[in-house]
Amino acid sequence: MADCHTNTEAADAMFARYGAAMPDFGHWNATLATLMRHRSVRAFTDRPIPEGVVETLVAAAQSAATSSNMQTWSVIAVTDAAMRANFSAWANDQAHVKQAPLVLVWLADLSRSERIGAAQGREMITLPYTEMAMVAMIDAALAAQNATVAAESLGLGTCYLGALRNKPQAVAEALGLPAQCFPVFGLCIGWPDPARPSEIRPRLPQSVVLHHERYDISQEAAGIALYDERFTAHQRQVGLPPSGWVARMIERIGTMRGLNGREIMRGALAALGFPFH
Amino acid sequence: MADCHTNTEAADAMFARYGAAMPDFGHWNATLATLMRHRSVRAFTDRPIPEGVVETLVAAAQSAATSSNMQTWSVIAVTDAAMRANFSAWANDQAHVKQAPLVLVWLADLSRSERIGAAQGREMITLPYTEMAMVAMIDAALAAQNATVAAESLGLGTCYLGALRNKPQAVAEALGLPAQCFPVFGLCIGWPDPARPSEIRPRLPQSVVLHHERYDISQEAAGIALYDERFTAHQRQVGLPPSGWVARMIERIGTMRGLNGREIMRGALAALGFPFH
Repeated sequence: MADCHTNTEAADAMFARYGAAMPDFGHWNATLATLMRHRSVRAFTDRPIPEGVVETLVAAAQSAATSSNMQTWSVIAVTDAAMRANFSAWANDQAHVKQAPLVLVWLADLSRSERIGAAQGREMITLPYTEMAMVAMIDAALAAQNATVAAESLGLGTCYLGALRNKPQAVAEALGLPAQCFPVFGLCIGWPDPARPSEIRPRLPQSVVLHHERYDISQEAAGIALYDERFTAHQRQVGLPPSGWVARMIERIGTMRGLNGREIMRGALAALGFPFH
Repeated sequence: MADCHTNTEAADAMFARYGAAMPDFGHWNATLATLMRHRSVRAFTDRPIPEGVVETLVAAAQSAATSSNMQTWSVIAVTDAAMRANFSAWANDQAHVKQAPLVLVWLADLSRSERIGAAQGREMITLPYTEMAMVAMIDAALAAQNATVAAESLGLGTCYLGALRNKPQAVAEALGLPAQCFPVFGLCIGWPDPARPSEIRPRLPQSVVLHHERYDISQEAAGIALYDERFTAHQRQVGLPPSGWVARMIERIGTMRGLNGREIMRGALAALGFPFH
């Protein structure tokens, strides 16, 4: 019975993600179930976050790999309603940002390394290089994803908030960030409202994103055409205008509107102490 | 019995990670166990990767959030021994890179977006901006971390391979990458050799990395001093020279040697089609 239930659950999650382009797979367990069932949640109840949850999520985050054990990230747990209202305003008034009882702000944090060197009278000369900014951003992302998986394993819903990058300097000032510390993204966390459930979003067929031995686009155009149809059907199903995925990508990536003001990123990063040498 | 076992397992994992600075927590399940027990594995057996595993890991990766559903990443599954030997050579001859039966190479891939636009006669004008390079790197990292968690849930061992960034242009050429496609890191995957087990690595106390409402370094110096002692003890325990963590950070971040040649990153990224406007 357990196996039967498990296999049905696996097949359902895979079908939601891939439709008829579902890959052949043969592995399933509780952790895979948590991963595969992910959907972004943008509607939360009033129920507060229980004691110990933030510490558990951060323990999961710190358990992720980090380049050379440098641990060049930090996280700020924001529960203050006024600050969440600020975040919402800076994120084009996304309502769920105010509604989520907890927003974790993930920081690429090279400032701690600078202080560690200063305490020993040493200049940390590699910090201005592009490589170090990349390490800090990547490590923050690995940590945040572990926290996301941990939150979802507890039944919480999450939604990444890339829109914090619409106003990086305002966010840095509001949170009292030192130089060499950059808010990479937020993560809204709360209990999903069962009255407004979200759906698993379809993704590109594996034939488009997974390559074997060398980069190979021979199946790309067919895979994207198939996905565009599936995505359009998904839009209809969840009550959105059925524009298709390709049209959305052209609007998001092919117009300056799509950047939501983030064309300032290079200058904003420099101002926050990331010169990208 | 089950609860007792579970709580002991939780306490053991937390103690390995934090020692006496263990946070107060009260949550545990199979997924949290997978996350908390992570350790990097650098010794693999000859046992091959079973059928369907790569597809399962990629399904987990695609289930991660992706900015505006842009899916600006790709992954190459490399099993070819000659290519893994190349990777090993470029990564300062790290032996486990040759030994791992599978290396997943994670790509920040804006080239697909370019092709999607070109097929519709549209120029994707936001691609040269720093923001888009960041989106692609962050999304690749979120995806890779889900694949890592999925692999570990199946009993596989993993080790990130940031050293692919020692030679980004050589990697790009060897894998046939188009412009606007950048190898962010590799992920070595295989069955851990029980004769050469790896240990959970201690991390900084949460008082150093977790802030509440605003950035706050009031507990940082004490937390780092405590960690330096714990890390030194860990080095002794695993047979490494007991240099301490602070000294390692000064060597890694405070000297040009620590960059392993990656001071070329900005130019390498530009050459690969990421101008960081």
